This record gives sequence, structure tokens and C-alpha cells, in this order.
Amino acid sequence: MEYIAGVDIGGTKIAATLFRPDGELLAKVVFPTRVERGPEAALAEIRTRLEELRRGRPAERLLGIGISCGGPLDSRTGLILSPPNLPGWASVPVTRFLSEAFRVPARLENDANAGALAEFRFGAGRASAASGRPVRNLVFMTMGTGIGAGLILDGRLYRGATGLAGEIGHTKIIPGGPECGCGGRGCLEALAAGPAIARRARERRKEFPASRIWTLAGGRPEAVTAAEVFAAAAAGDRLGRLVVEETAYYLGLGLANLVNLLNPEVIVLGTIATRYGDFFLEPVRRVVAAEAWPDPVAAVRITGSPLGDLTGDYAALAVFLDQSPGA
Amino acid sequence: MEYIAGVDIGGTKIAATLFRPDGELLAKVVFPTRVERGPEAALAEIRTRLEELRRGRPAERLLGIGISCGGPLDSRTGLILSPPNLPGWASVPVTRFLSEAFRVPARLENDANAGALAEFRFGAGRASAASGRPVRNLVFMTMGTGIGAGLILDGRLYRGATGLAGEIGHTKIIPGGPECGCGGRGCLEALAAGPAIARRARERRKEFPASRIWTLAGGRPEAVTAAEVFAAAAAGDRLGRLVVEETAYYLGLGLANLVNLLNPEVIVLGTIATRYGDFFLEPVRRVVAAEAWPDPVAAVRITGSPLGDLTGDYAALAVFLDQSPGA
Repeated sequence: MEYIAGVDIGGTKIAATLFRPDGELLAKVVFPTRVERGPEAALAEIRTRLEELRRGRPAERLLGIGISCGGPLDSRTGLILSPPNLPGWASVPVTRFLSEAFRVPARLENDANAGALAEFRFGAGRASAASGRPVRNLVFMTMGTGIGAGLILDGRLYRGATGLAGEIGHTKIIPGGPECGCGGRGCLEALAAGPAIARRARERRKEFPASRIWTLAGGRPEAVTAAEVFAAAAAGDRLGRLVVEETAYYLGLGLANLVNLLNPEVIVLGTIATRYGDFFLEPVRRVVAAEAWPDPVAAVRITGSPLGDLTGDYAALAVFLDQSPGA
Repeated sequence: MEYIAGVDIGGTKIAATLFRPDGELLAKVVFPTRVERGPEAALAEIRTRLEELRRGRPAERLLGIGISCGGPLDSRTGLILSPPNLPGWASVPVTRFLSEAFRVPARLENDANAGALAEFRFGAGRASAASGRPVRNLVFMTMGTGIGAGLILDGRLYRGATGLAGEIGHTKIIPGGPECGCGGRGCLEALAAGPAIARRARERRKEFPASRIWTLAGGRPEAVTAAEVFAAAAAGDRLGRLVVEETAYYLGLGLANLVNLLNPEVIVLGTIATRYGDFFLEPVRRVVAAEAWPDPVAAVRITGSPLGDLTGDYAALAVFLDQSPGA
């Protein structure tokens, strides 16, 4: 039986997987990235783990390796280019290393594009196809430390002129708003990414001294992350709900622009949105409905990822399966 | 010699043209739309004018007819659907009428999409190809009473899930900003389209009672249009320059979002931007450079239309030549 290997590289952990080409997950192992040991040691461990994982399977049946990693990276040359979550990983030739180690083709794609390919082929894109109309246009949004999007347009991954398409995190939502890591102001990322969510909660600390958020963060406001804010909000905490509502407003404005501009069938929101489902998605949908044209709003479905915790794994698989130009 | 007919339908005038398939303009006639006479009379005149225009050319060499018209319209069924500039033109079967009259295929597309196809094939897309790298991703923006965009992505017209892609005029630039015809607030169209430009000048009438704008409008502030504002600005008028700078700021914010999201090689700004060239384009480029990521900014060229006054004619031709799905 033929199989494909997937590698999902994150800042804290790496997942290595084996899949059948049709998407059946055969095996998976997760291990810590340990960024401080440097990329060579991590690559060596990825190799060892993949070798262990496929023990007992014929080497010649391995079709190839798909790799998903946070950007920036160059999918054409297969180089990881110092992503913020992997300090010290400058010009890491991950595809060459794995391709030579296993003597199969390897492909690399950033996590937003990879997630879009995965949702299109195995997730939300497929779910809608079952309802009758095939999905041709799907946007996948990563929402973590940063915010990025992968765009499937007319059935193919859209990369743009120089492979930089999808930077929705730096579209301007509130001109003159809070400073962003990119040097600009009022970017979606500076308003709705994890650190921005935590910051907006902390800014109201004196106003809400008894918020459950501080308890969940062990009494250390400086340790608050988006996770505590959402957990508190889900439990009915007032400050939590306020910050979640604001987040939904900013995100909804960004998505309304996307809906007006690209008229997609599906927008998949990953991570937090997937974890909290309609609790977060409903207010986002309300903002989009209020701010975008009614006709493209009627045509779009905004959803969490049906792939859930396996999104990154299917992302790696989908990177290998993708045959789009530029891959 | 084979030839193609083009029809560019506007609210005040209609242009009928004959082209060779390679883009050589053979003949052109322009006549008033006279909206008040209704669509039947206008269609009849289009037919008569085209018949006159091709007199002396063999009927069997006419390959087909391309039609460009302001939206909304349905390019699949060939129906014009009550565009704001053509009151009373509800469900006008323009392609069926012309196709039956001339016994050739006819195609209809909205002016933004048609303009994008024209620039891609005959205008700014071609100019860049000459400089070495072929253009695959081009955005054409119409800036008149409304603001819309046509998107060429990966070398093809992108229509979206239900043919509504490109509504950049209703992306939110200033949340809570001025009211838009769409019912929303702070849309690009409510800030930077012709009527918004005129409105912003009029709002400062008491502050600038001696502005050249009022003279150019015959002393009737209520008659001011964007044309007077730009003409005054070009002549050094202070209010004119102020309003043009503001317009460049709002438009630049909208384009920065587009650049971050789609990473195109070329953005072509039609009408006023084409007429005033770098006088308007330079401030727009400065805003985009300040607000978008440096990398996609470096990859994009923002320009007026090299097709100039013939954009609408080439648009109609390009609609017929386009073979994209959904056309």
C-alpha cells in the first residue's frame, strides 16, 4: 500500500504523520521542537521519527513528503526563512534534507496555504461539496500569534505575483489604530491575533479587577493569553465576553472586506474559532452580515475547521498532494 | 478579413466598434444613450449603428459581439439588471437581441471585469510583459459614480462563487465613516468615488470661499463634480489639493489592503486617475507604500490605463475574446 509522509513544524511541537493518498491517517507521532537546539538537530529528529514511524512499511511505497511550517518561507526553493516562532531557523533547506534522506520528492508550504489546501480537499470544502454545489473558492485563516490566510480561488491555491498573497493580518481595519509588529497601525493582526486579545483584556484590568481571567492566569495578568480570555468568556465572565465581542467585530470587518472582494463560498477560521465554535463564530457572522453586501454574504459559509486538531496534519499531506503551479 | 464588434454601454453614451481579433481598431461610432427612451429603442439603435458600421464588410466574417456595461448584470444569461446609470433597464436581454440580430455569439460582462480583461490583454498587462516578466495578476479599478474592480488572478478573470467578486468599493476603509449608498458606513465608495469627492469639497465651502472650484462650477457649488475638484487641484487650488490628497489617502488604504491580500503585479486605475496621471497616482503610491507590507509593495506597479479613452472599447472587445469559465 502506498503512503505519504507529513511533517507539521510548529514553534513548540512537531508532528510527523503517515497517510494513505486518500487521506486515511495511518500513524502519527508528536515531539517537542525545542527551538534552542537549532534546526540541524530538529531535522535529524524529524528524520529519525519518520524512520521509526514507517518501520515495517516498504521504503519504495513512500510517495513523498509534505511539510507545513509557519512563514516566511520559500516554497519554490524549499527554504524556511526565520519564522518568528522558530528563531535561528534562517535558510533551513528542509525539503532538500528530507528529500535526500528518504529519496522521494518533498514539498514545503506555509501553514496558511497548507491549511487552505487541506480544508479544500479534506475539510470544509469537501463538506459543502456533499451539499450539492462544489466549492471552488475557499479562504482558510490561521489565528494564533499572527493572522494569515490561504486562498483557494477557482479551485487552485492562489499565491500572487511573488508568493506573498493572503496577508490579511496586515489589512487595515482601524486606520491609526494600535501599532502592529509590521510597523503599521490598526492592522487586523494588531487587533484580533492572540497577543492583541490578551493586551485588550489587560488594558481593562482596573475596570474589571474581579474578572475570572486573572484567576485563570494564576493571578498573573502578565501571563494572560487569548486562551484565558476565551475560557473566561465561555464561562460568562463580563470582561471576557467584552473582549471576545470586540475581537469578533474586528475580525468581522476584515472578513466583510474579504467577502466583498473575493465572494468565496467558504471561510474557515482555524485555532481559537474552531475550538470555541458558534460561541465565537456567531458574533463574527453577525458583523459580516452587517458590514458586507447582502448578496455575497448569502453565498458564503463561515465555519470552524471540521478537521479540528488534525488540521496541521492534513495540511502537510495536502502540500504534497497539491499540483498547483509554483509548488 | 475577420472582425469582431464591440458595444460599450454607458449612462450617457454608447460606443459601437469594429476590431480585428488582434486588437486593431477598424471603426467606431459614438451616440447618446438617451436613457429616457427605454432599452428597446436603444437596442434598436445599437443594431442600426453596427449595421452601418460594418457596411461593405462580409457578414460571414463577423466572429461575434462583446458587450461591456455597468453592473449589476448577469454575464451567464446575458441580462442587464437595472444598473444605477440606466434606470428602467430591468432584465434587458442584450446578448440574445444582438446574437439573433447578427447571427453570431454575443457576450456580456460588467465594465470592471471587462476593463480588467482589456488591460490584461491589450493594456497595462501587455506593457509589463514587454519588460520581461509576464503579468499574471492584475487589478483594474473603475472610479466614477461608483468604485468597482475587475480581478485577473493567475491569468484568468476571477468571478467568485456567484459572480460578485471585485466589490472593492464596499470594503470598509473608515469604520463608522460617511454613509454609503449600500447602507453601510465608511466604504471606499463613500469616501473616494466621484460624488464623495464633490461632497467633501462642498463641505468646506465656507472655509474656502475663494476656491477656484466654485468658479469652475459656474458659481454653483451644488453643480460641483470630481472633475472640477481635480481641475482646480491641478491648477494649484488649495481646497482642490486638499480634497485630492484625502482621496489619495482613502484610495491608498483600500489598495494597500488589496496589495497585502492579493499580491498583484499591476493595479490599473481608470477614469480620473488615468486622466490626471502621476499628479494623482504619486500620492496614491505613497500611501500604499506606507500602509502595505514592503515586499508586495515592491512587486506591484500602480498605473493609469495605457488604453486611455479607448479602455471601454477594448473592454467590449476583450469580453468577446475571453474564454474564462462562466463567461
